[in-house]
Amino acid sequence: MDNSALLTDFYQLSMAYGYWQLGLDDQETVFHLFFRRMPKQGDYVVASGLQAVIDYLNQFRFTDDDIAYLKTIKNPTFSDEFLAYLKTLRFTGDIDAMPEGSIVFGNEPLLRIKASIILCQLLETPLINALNFSSAVATTATRMRTTAGNDVLFEFGLRRSQGPNGGLTASRAAYLGGFDATSNVLAGKYFDIPVVGTMAHSWVMSFDDELTAFEAYARLIPENLVLLVDTYNTMQGVDHAIAVGKKSGLLKGIRLDSGDLGALSIAAREKLNQAGLFETKIFVSGDITENRLIELKSMKAPIDGWGVGTHLSTSYDQPALDMVYKLGAIKKTNAWQYKLKISENHIKTSDPGILQVRRVFEKDKWKGDIIYHEDFGVPDCIDFKDLLIPIFRKGQLLNEQPSLHEKRQYCLEQVKQFNASKGDGYSVKREERLLELKRKLMR
Amino acid sequence: MDNSALLTDFYQLSMAYGYWQLGLDDQETVFHLFFRRMPKQGDYVVASGLQAVIDYLNQFRFTDDDIAYLKTIKNPTFSDEFLAYLKTLRFTGDIDAMPEGSIVFGNEPLLRIKASIILCQLLETPLINALNFSSAVATTATRMRTTAGNDVLFEFGLRRSQGPNGGLTASRAAYLGGFDATSNVLAGKYFDIPVVGTMAHSWVMSFDDELTAFEAYARLIPENLVLLVDTYNTMQGVDHAIAVGKKSGLLKGIRLDSGDLGALSIAAREKLNQAGLFETKIFVSGDITENRLIELKSMKAPIDGWGVGTHLSTSYDQPALDMVYKLGAIKKTNAWQYKLKISENHIKTSDPGILQVRRVFEKDKWKGDIIYHEDFGVPDCIDFKDLLIPIFRKGQLLNEQPSLHEKRQYCLEQVKQFNASKGDGYSVKREERLLELKRKLMR
Repeated sequence: MDNSALLTDFYQLSMAYGYWQLGLDDQETVFHLFFRRMPKQGDYVVASGLQAVIDYLNQFRFTDDDIAYLKTIKNPTFSDEFLAYLKTLRFTGDIDAMPEGSIVFGNEPLLRIKASIILCQLLETPLINALNFSSAVATTATRMRTTAGNDVLFEFGLRRSQGPNGGLTASRAAYLGGFDATSNVLAGKYFDIPVVGTMAHSWVMSFDDELTAFEAYARLIPENLVLLVDTYNTMQGVDHAIAVGKKSGLLKGIRLDSGDLGALSIAAREKLNQAGLFETKIFVSGDITENRLIELKSMKAPIDGWGVGTHLSTSYDQPALDMVYKLGAIKKTNAWQYKLKISENHIKTSDPGILQVRRVFEKDKWKGDIIYHEDFGVPDCIDFKDLLIPIFRKGQLLNEQPSLHEKRQYCLEQVKQFNASKGDGYSVKREERLLELKRKLMR
Repeated sequence: MDNSALLTDFYQLSMAYGYWQLGLDDQETVFHLFFRRMPKQGDYVVASGLQAVIDYLNQFRFTDDDIAYLKTIKNPTFSDEFLAYLKTLRFTGDIDAMPEGSIVFGNEPLLRIKASIILCQLLETPLINALNFSSAVATTATRMRTTAGNDVLFEFGLRRSQGPNGGLTASRAAYLGGFDATSNVLAGKYFDIPVVGTMAHSWVMSFDDELTAFEAYARLIPENLVLLVDTYNTMQGVDHAIAVGKKSGLLKGIRLDSGDLGALSIAAREKLNQAGLFETKIFVSGDITENRLIELKSMKAPIDGWGVGTHLSTSYDQPALDMVYKLGAIKKTNAWQYKLKISENHIKTSDPGILQVRRVFEKDKWKGDIIYHEDFGVPDCIDFKDLLIPIFRKGQLLNEQPSLHEKRQYCLEQVKQFNASKGDGYSVKREERLLELKRKLMR
């Protein structure tokens, strides 16, 4: 239901109606989707959300119900002929996009669409919706993965996420960016992500005392014995967990969900070791932010796994990237005209043309990116990759996407390679003839 | 699809499996959903999202597909008998909740659920998910409405929102909180919210020049002539709009989407007035935040309508409230035991019992709220209202909900009444015997 063609801004329909009246329903245009400012005080963004784009475009249509609703709208009142046209409309354009898990920088198109001006307008809103938030979460996830090294990372944010889709998108993007598992069972089902979780405080509270609650859990769910120790007094909780662990021999871990996680994890580790439970892991959760993770890692707190919720799943430190979608070219009487959006704020002036991004390598290192206009090309270089790859041609999906697991692997490699290269001063440049065209059009 | 019973955290299923093995599937419990800290440096929160709760509970079930997925999970491996039990599980409990649009304060339950411990656990995650974000957006919307007075407020956030549901929820909550319309067409269809919008920069860019673009729009969509004037040079855009306005006599408004909106609106108003276009409105959009609105209103910028996007629809200044869900009572051998969650951080210790919130009035003014335990009652007062009202009994929805339009009206009145009362020092207290019980249980 949420994938309806009505998932768009009303002005797209207004404009579509205008273009249609002008007979421009076949006029080809090229739009680029990109962000401008580098978010989250970081040095890269991870592209994520292409799968949602593909799913949306594959089933893009106005249902009878949608058309009936549009008939009720005034300002403007759409003609029956236009509504009949919408009813038959399908996605028939080309999409080139960066694979999910790619590293992308400001002003580089993540996605390029070539389609009729009407399709391009209608799709602006759902395309940004699909890529913007997902990329924000995947970016944070990779940064947390880099900080956490080989620790286990769990995504626990469903309850605080912005609606069911917000939660599903966050769980998927977190996994793409290197998290190991999620608490979100529906995300587990849809995306084949491992699901995790054991007990809440309410389990402990529903028994007459904590030790009884722990013993019951060990007896009933012995395969996954991780005990939450902070319902009443944390160190007493650790003692109770140790008692159950020594008796059952099954204590996989304890979880700390509040308090000074640094001090508590040190004290708990000591107690566990004294009891000979060297294999029992310490997991933490509860308002974990990126900075808190950095801090606890740098003080070498003996924490083996991290449950991250609200901060990751709502992209708390920057809830939205500033992705935009700009017209680059329009075909008039069989020739392309190149377009830009001028802004008094110079960095907001968009790039004209039909753009591509080339990443240049030298041995094992990434050297930099060049944004170029496909009609002009780019100077020769030996080792390179063009980042926008063909996804749809004339409305047909070209290839099956890799699995989410493969994308995750790709993403982790990309981050590792970029982090190893960035010290040398990574640069993103515009190719010279593109710059010239831009200067010319600005005059 | 996103309303599946799997839309929950895995630990809820783990615990449910434990309770079920103990034969506690009929054990009645009471949980309360509330937030602790007052968000957004504000003095109230607007309750929103109850409709999503009702829709979820009305169709709560595990499908064959869901059960098949659960069979694939290890840690723990669920028994076939337990899965058969889940298959037949429906919502059979009681819900009492504050109506949508109510004003609520920290520690006051927005929603109380009485149901089997298994249902209560499984529903924790989706209930918080439904209420948390929606209430955050509705709260901001009412604050913007208060600041904006009688100006027109549009919600434009779909593209930057956190997934399709995030966008739909935000559009609905913004309307509840006093916005007039949305750009989100799907929200218009689902929730009967007026939809608005005219043109984007791409409309202007797709023509050879701005004036031609404006003339075409006036000819094609005369019923809703609002011209976006900042694609190239804003004041030149105003001149072009005026030219079209004078010729057509139809210029409803212009829209400024960038730059110094205060100075530009003053200059544009002057030009419009000089041209005799006194009725033409000035609308603004582009990174409007609550503070920006306050600032522009206080400088009396001649702006008639505001399009608010990212800031509102992602609840940018606080992307998540800190709503929690705590066990208050559990029935053992036919008697209720009252429960609390102790925290070393005193304000995090929850209230035990079966709670209700009484709002006390005196003449036209609100005097304060009393959180009380239903078993103990509350001292007599003359003019009052209990805020939690019965929604479900034994799984049956008691009454149809008011329409969203009625809820919006209610919300606007509530905000007005609270704002008129709060100067006298509004207080939220716990009833004395509830406090005594809490102290006793903490010892």
